[in-house]
Amino acid sequence: MNMHRHFETELDSLKEKLLTMASLAEAAVNRSIRALVERNDELARTVKADDSQLDTLEMEIDELAISLLSKAPLAIDLRLITVAMKISHDLERVGDEATTISRRALELGQEPQLKPYVDIPRMASMGLDMFKEALDAFVNRDPAKARAIIPRDKEVDALNKQLHRELASYMIERPTTITRCLNLMVISKSLERIADHATNVAEEVVYLYEGRDIRHSGKAAAPVTV
Amino acid sequence: MNMHRHFETELDSLKEKLLTMASLAEAAVNRSIRALVERNDELARTVKADDSQLDTLEMEIDELAISLLSKAPLAIDLRLITVAMKISHDLERVGDEATTISRRALELGQEPQLKPYVDIPRMASMGLDMFKEALDAFVNRDPAKARAIIPRDKEVDALNKQLHRELASYMIERPTTITRCLNLMVISKSLERIADHATNVAEEVVYLYEGRDIRHSGKAAAPVTV
Repeated sequence: MNMHRHFETELDSLKEKLLTMASLAEAAVNRSIRALVERNDELARTVKADDSQLDTLEMEIDELAISLLSKAPLAIDLRLITVAMKISHDLERVGDEATTISRRALELGQEPQLKPYVDIPRMASMGLDMFKEALDAFVNRDPAKARAIIPRDKEVDALNKQLHRELASYMIERPTTITRCLNLMVISKSLERIADHATNVAEEVVYLYEGRDIRHSGKAAAPVTV
Repeated sequence: MNMHRHFETELDSLKEKLLTMASLAEAAVNRSIRALVERNDELARTVKADDSQLDTLEMEIDELAISLLSKAPLAIDLRLITVAMKISHDLERVGDEATTISRRALELGQEPQLKPYVDIPRMASMGLDMFKEALDAFVNRDPAKARAIIPRDKEVDALNKQLHRELASYMIERPTTITRCLNLMVISKSLERIADHATNVAEEVVYLYEGRDIRHSGKAAAPVTV
């Protein structure tokens, strides 16, 4: 009984670390987008610090997970632990994307702004909302909620494709904007990838609580592009 | 004893599935590059089939891993199993990159060729060599070999950056080439990401056999860009 209680405490600590990662990742993305929109170089430079905290937490979660795996009493616990490892990896990657965005924001800050940013902040909040809900679904054992997140990935994909097309025509019309357009394409692609990671998490949560693996099932319709 | 033998057999089957994934991923990348270089649309279209085999194998490996985790007698086995899950995820992603490359090869096939491809096939074989050696290091329990792979990621990064710069200036000089240049940039980035996945695998193998987590240690020098 005592050992079981100890296991539960460690499992709670694993979940807590995941939620800490989630808020750090969210803060990093928000900061990188604010740095872009407000043309704030100082803010862009702070994003890297969040990113290294995420890296450290991912390694801590891995260590904790390995130790928990050896004590897990039930099959569902094994799954939960391996899913937690995967989610932490996805969150770490979100931090990488935020770093990419802030680096591109710094480059964009050196030239006049091309146009007001509308779709980019929208894509960012769509991806972050998906992430928040996927983590809620994980914590509250709610596979239905997780399942509802998955189709939203296509909306973000569509926005990315539309922006890519617009930027590509803009470049052709005005070749002097090429560098800026390329930077914006990279940012848009990073945001699209954040939504992909949120979708991964949602699929993992469905798999965890329904025991059905739905990864790759809608893949043909949501290709990796741009 | 009998149960232990059964565990060993399942563990071997896990490793075997990983090696199958590795050859499929390698074949997919080679095929996508050949499709690009030879301007062979039919070949480009076959890449998707390899990719779905990889998706299926990843799910099988996950299931097998979960079942093995509950029977693992030693801590090193737990690590090996979780590392195998991570490697299989990296291999699945390599398949995704091959699909991206072949899609872009199809688009490039619709216009005259921009220039002979030299750096792109070179980047592909560099990334694939890294992968092969990382898997050898995994199977032969050779962390030193795995460690030697990691710095090579920077060479592939440098090639990608150089190609990106060349293509960006080319676009500015000749705006009619913009679409082709963008497609080539995406392909180059995909190849850079394949080398990243190989580096992940190498780092996981070092972690597995040396127990030291070296992920993220060289990160500042190898940023996620383009």
